[in-house]
Amino acid sequence: MRVAILGPRGTYAEVAARSQFGKGVKVAPYPTITDVVEAVAGGKIPAGVVPVESLREGSVGEALDALAWSDVRVRAEVVVPITHSLLVIPRAGTKQITQVLSHPQAIAQCREFLRKNLPKAELIEMASTAKAAEQVGKLRQPHMAAIGPHVLAELYGLEVKRDGIQSGEVNLTRFLCVAKRDGNPTGCDKTSIVFYTAEDRPGILHEILGEFASRGINLTKIESRPSKKALGDYLFFIDFEGHREDVRPREALEAVRGKTAMLKILGSYPKIF
Amino acid sequence: MRVAILGPRGTYAEVAARSQFGKGVKVAPYPTITDVVEAVAGGKIPAGVVPVESLREGSVGEALDALAWSDVRVRAEVVVPITHSLLVIPRAGTKQITQVLSHPQAIAQCREFLRKNLPKAELIEMASTAKAAEQVGKLRQPHMAAIGPHVLAELYGLEVKRDGIQSGEVNLTRFLCVAKRDGNPTGCDKTSIVFYTAEDRPGILHEILGEFASRGINLTKIESRPSKKALGDYLFFIDFEGHREDVRPREALEAVRGKTAMLKILGSYPKIF
Repeated sequence: MRVAILGPRGTYAEVAARSQFGKGVKVAPYPTITDVVEAVAGGKIPAGVVPVESLREGSVGEALDALAWSDVRVRAEVVVPITHSLLVIPRAGTKQITQVLSHPQAIAQCREFLRKNLPKAELIEMASTAKAAEQVGKLRQPHMAAIGPHVLAELYGLEVKRDGIQSGEVNLTRFLCVAKRDGNPTGCDKTSIVFYTAEDRPGILHEILGEFASRGINLTKIESRPSKKALGDYLFFIDFEGHREDVRPREALEAVRGKTAMLKILGSYPKIF
Repeated sequence: MRVAILGPRGTYAEVAARSQFGKGVKVAPYPTITDVVEAVAGGKIPAGVVPVESLREGSVGEALDALAWSDVRVRAEVVVPITHSLLVIPRAGTKQITQVLSHPQAIAQCREFLRKNLPKAELIEMASTAKAAEQVGKLRQPHMAAIGPHVLAELYGLEVKRDGIQSGEVNLTRFLCVAKRDGNPTGCDKTSIVFYTAEDRPGILHEILGEFASRGINLTKIESRPSKKALGDYLFFIDFEGHREDVRPREALEAVRGKTAMLKILGSYPKIF
């Protein structure tokens, strides 16, 4: 099975793809989220994995836009904890480390660990955690270390010296797996939709949510997002519990279709999060 | 006037601060959005400017969290178009350029310009656009260029060779100006609130939105966000038209307070966006 991911290799998108499709999955890295979705929409590859929201950073706008306007369906959701590892060349000792390379955000997230364990190390900012690991893997100097996801160790011939070195609460990132068809009903599903109302009048969103509320359907996410066509024009992204083929969700979706200028059912899939 | 911004200097946060407070504003860069908000909350500095959403990237989770849990108020909104410039040392010609330094995202956004105008230049990925400009300003080589906001030119003694070199639609970023007090009513205001419902039952959000709809109050943004306390617990961020001291918004807010476990009025401010 080949799966498109946001590249470069060794990012959390690859961790998510492995968790969904198994360790043997062959990942094909693409330069942007839109490219991943378009590759699936165009039939070049059967599935893709894209990040849609992170507990810390919020939603990923590019993913929402790509889902709204491309011919793909959401087939599964995958939640991955973002944890950083200290990566070195095999058999290098922590005491030897005088340089630590990583993306500025990863360095910031591991500041406490660095202050305690490597207070004198020079911190070198790189454009991505993958570039940092690539550099350490290429130069093979025992005084260099990279910070990033543990999957980078395997890709660049490095060793995980310490795992989970980030500070504070665990940051979770939610990925969606997209394909040409969504999932079959399992009895515990979620459905993602996006819609657009032609009218910008007070109460229209309230009316639409009423179609779910009156049928006892629980919403798990709601987000408005500028449509990019004009300021003040909004797309609404909603996730709710239930499969689009279940009786009450089906009725609600029919009613919502009548109240919106555009409704796209992004897909139904087993509920994880 | 001193204003806290997300550092380093020369990012779009500085552009936003200048647009709000004038070119003479003294900016104090802080390492994270949370640090900016905490500095204002603690009375260390009278105001701060933080990014809250970008048309392309979506909401900035860290800013929403910082606003929800800190003792600051939103005083103004500022919308800045993200445009990139080609920056070189004074009097360097475009034909001399063989290396272009920037953040990978900025390079991606200017790919079309680079392909047409500098097809042979080596593209060097840096950790930020500011680092790229700093490097070019330090080495002062006429074959090097940086891509980033034009404000970097002034900071690092560079010249704007070309402006607006990014592709596609203009990307807008919305910043909020925070202070100890919010704005006075102007007749054309917006109010931002965040709330938390103790009950997770279908229809509770619908009921709350009803308090706005029944009073003819238009919502301009709605977003749910995991509360970070437990999976499935949500904070709701809503922006609506009107000032919190106006009659109908005041009534709606009183009614919403009765239906929520936590309601924080982030502030009322003149409507721009």
